[in-house]
Amino acid sequence: MATADIGVTGLAVMGRNLARNLARHGHVVALHNRSVQRTRSLVAEHGDEGTFVASESLAEFVGSLKSPRAVIVMVKAGEPTDAVIEELTPLLDEGDIVIDCGNAHFADTRRREATLREHGIHFVGCGVSGGEEGALLGPSIMPGGSAQSYQKLGPIFESIAAQVDGTPCCVHVGPDGAGHFVKMVHNGIEYADMQLIAEAYDLLRAGLGAEPPELAEIFRTWNSGDLESFLIEITADVLAHVDDTTGKPFVDIVLDQAEQKGTGRWTVQTALDLGVPITGIAEATFARSLSGHAEQRSAARAALSQESGIQVDDREQFIEDVRRALYASKVVAYAQGFDLITAGSAEYGWDVDRGAMATIWRGGCIIRARFLDRIREAYDADPDLPSLLVAPYFADAVRAGVQSWRRVVATAALGGIPTPAFSSSLAYYDALRRLPLPAALIQGLRDNFGAHTYRRTDRDGSFHVQWAGDKAEHPA
Amino acid sequence: MATADIGVTGLAVMGRNLARNLARHGHVVALHNRSVQRTRSLVAEHGDEGTFVASESLAEFVGSLKSPRAVIVMVKAGEPTDAVIEELTPLLDEGDIVIDCGNAHFADTRRREATLREHGIHFVGCGVSGGEEGALLGPSIMPGGSAQSYQKLGPIFESIAAQVDGTPCCVHVGPDGAGHFVKMVHNGIEYADMQLIAEAYDLLRAGLGAEPPELAEIFRTWNSGDLESFLIEITADVLAHVDDTTGKPFVDIVLDQAEQKGTGRWTVQTALDLGVPITGIAEATFARSLSGHAEQRSAARAALSQESGIQVDDREQFIEDVRRALYASKVVAYAQGFDLITAGSAEYGWDVDRGAMATIWRGGCIIRARFLDRIREAYDADPDLPSLLVAPYFADAVRAGVQSWRRVVATAALGGIPTPAFSSSLAYYDALRRLPLPAALIQGLRDNFGAHTYRRTDRDGSFHVQWAGDKAEHPA
Repeated sequence: MATADIGVTGLAVMGRNLARNLARHGHVVALHNRSVQRTRSLVAEHGDEGTFVASESLAEFVGSLKSPRAVIVMVKAGEPTDAVIEELTPLLDEGDIVIDCGNAHFADTRRREATLREHGIHFVGCGVSGGEEGALLGPSIMPGGSAQSYQKLGPIFESIAAQVDGTPCCVHVGPDGAGHFVKMVHNGIEYADMQLIAEAYDLLRAGLGAEPPELAEIFRTWNSGDLESFLIEITADVLAHVDDTTGKPFVDIVLDQAEQKGTGRWTVQTALDLGVPITGIAEATFARSLSGHAEQRSAARAALSQESGIQVDDREQFIEDVRRALYASKVVAYAQGFDLITAGSAEYGWDVDRGAMATIWRGGCIIRARFLDRIREAYDADPDLPSLLVAPYFADAVRAGVQSWRRVVATAALGGIPTPAFSSSLAYYDALRRLPLPAALIQGLRDNFGAHTYRRTDRDGSFHVQWAGDKAEHPA
Repeated sequence: MATADIGVTGLAVMGRNLARNLARHGHVVALHNRSVQRTRSLVAEHGDEGTFVASESLAEFVGSLKSPRAVIVMVKAGEPTDAVIEELTPLLDEGDIVIDCGNAHFADTRRREATLREHGIHFVGCGVSGGEEGALLGPSIMPGGSAQSYQKLGPIFESIAAQVDGTPCCVHVGPDGAGHFVKMVHNGIEYADMQLIAEAYDLLRAGLGAEPPELAEIFRTWNSGDLESFLIEITADVLAHVDDTTGKPFVDIVLDQAEQKGTGRWTVQTALDLGVPITGIAEATFARSLSGHAEQRSAARAALSQESGIQVDDREQFIEDVRRALYASKVVAYAQGFDLITAGSAEYGWDVDRGAMATIWRGGCIIRARFLDRIREAYDADPDLPSLLVAPYFADAVRAGVQSWRRVVATAALGGIPTPAFSSSLAYYDALRRLPLPAALIQGLRDNFGAHTYRRTDRDGSFHVQWAGDKAEHPA
């Protein structure tokens, strides 16, 4: 009996919550999980939330789906995903749709899409952000794959996505791997956002000598301004939290070694391949790696001077400087992330609408923020915007904060407080507007030692100087 | 007639110069090139430098080599290399050695080594640094592959390598891809070195208002101190050079868009995979990418403030500050590069002797520097050194320069001169010695939005707070 509108195979917490979200919105949801217990417990605990069709085998599961079938695969990225797809394929018909809602690498998604396309099956790599809670209550959804697949999936996904101002946080991103690519960049930006917040916290604590609960209030205040965002909001929550066992601020009993699951790394590696300088995300990713090198850090503390500290005369001014530095650095992180989307879209012919990406990130996902409305507006005003930094709103905002930003980076450098993402973002901003860059010297050196040639400012062509000889210039 | 000691196939300029270098050192060199003209011209022009055995076919070439045969492949990286190896393999016998002296990715080298090993053939991925001139006059040579292959290759390669204080700049790096890995890191460090020099030049020029020839003198002076190195030497040459056509300083007519060939990118991508924060190399790589985005830079100049500039009161102090900042940042770049070698060696079981790497980089290669003697000494004193930064010599050197370094980074930030590598290196130094890092807050945020759990400072295990509920802590 083919009665289900959509199916979910893989019912760990993310799959389970997506299935419940679908059922709550009136979709008949087919369920499958390798071990049947999970399927049964989902139906037993949440069967009253909507209509579930439970199956014990994959064949039965596929049979319970209306045509064209839509199957969400929610298993671990990598080999488990390939294994499920392989098992599913012979059970499906032309026109059916397989949706991978895990965090796959977009290159894997492109490969899978090409393979299934040969069988006439649509493969949709679909980014889902918002964690477990988002999956249940409304995530941000970034589906790639064919436009045809979105005709069926769009209405379903838009109904379960987060809604902001009546607009669903879901849009068709583009063909094949576009959805997973954009989700990867989203996560990269999330790395930068969190590192910037961590640096702001570290500076405020060092500069003000304040305890975390007091700092929580600062972030709480910031959350009613330009910086309003989910991450600033939970930063206040985390800083305000007191550890039960010790009575100490929670953040002081947490081991200061940040972990990562790989999407930040993928973002930077992809940016290197595409030649897009995403220095904020790179510094954020490396900052996490550095924090985990406990043995090296311990050796460094033993061998190197411990002195650090900053003198703050005007506390209010300092807080405002840090706030503005955070905002400006955040603009850079987003500008770099959107540049990467631009480059990926051009490389793979995806034609991604960047304003639409800002729109669907406004709710459901980890980086949701008031700020994204400004990004959407910037791309609405100029779809070909060469950099977010040059959009009038952001150019003005950064101009207004640039002296604060400079003071903060200088203060941190002088005081020995590491602010890799703040300072890297400022260097990016300054490099982007500098002419000439000392890259000219680098080209000169490369021509000198490796005959790599150079171009000139005053005429076309490539040239080489006979450095070891008469130093004459020759066309290359 | 098998009379040749070693053969070279692929006689473009690098292969040609390696062949001549081998012949000049008394080795009988078999020659082969796809188009015979190159082989003939080499013999015609340089036949008197030693004994060459020219062949017109690959079979003839292989037949001219004494057993076990050693064949250097010097063709383009990627598919051309695979094509030549495939053609060679059936012509070779067990125990023969194929040496790839191009800039292959170490992962390709590992794959090729494993394939040829199945045929009983040794495959040696061999890094060669020093450019065309080095290949002819004495490069730094970094051979990977089996220890057995080095028994034959070692005496030959050590004879043609650069020699420093009577020590050849060649050593067996380690199994399979170790040689190409170390060469990749060498190139990554070269990127950082050049970016740091470029930033120093940019700061000096902005701060002193001096013209390139005057700045050349500063670098010339620096080259007689701690910074003595090939790159500083040629920086002075390039800055002193005047363009024939315009009479302007050469560096001012070179287009300020730096190019790259990929090894910097590989280095950063590999470091991301291995979790090693090589921020200096990453910033240097991204700085080159940024410089090439002409359209974006032009838009940024139009939209953003142009103001920048630094006030220097004490010129001598400023020059000395920049020199010390350059030195300290350089220590960080090398510390990070050697960390990457450590991580690669551990990951792939190569057992690379880091002191030996410093030794063979002292001559022949682009990053040759007096400095490398200090690195060799540091690893001699402590082969398990957790970071170059904690070796007494370098810890002292950085301590002596740290106030200068801080002033330079602060001055650049305030003055709007981009110094991504200077400031990133300082942030790395400060992060390494900081306790606690604000990574604790990042872990708290990750636990809050994604239930990613955290560890505690005061007891073992992983924990999770019920953030949405009673905020109680539970073991994870």
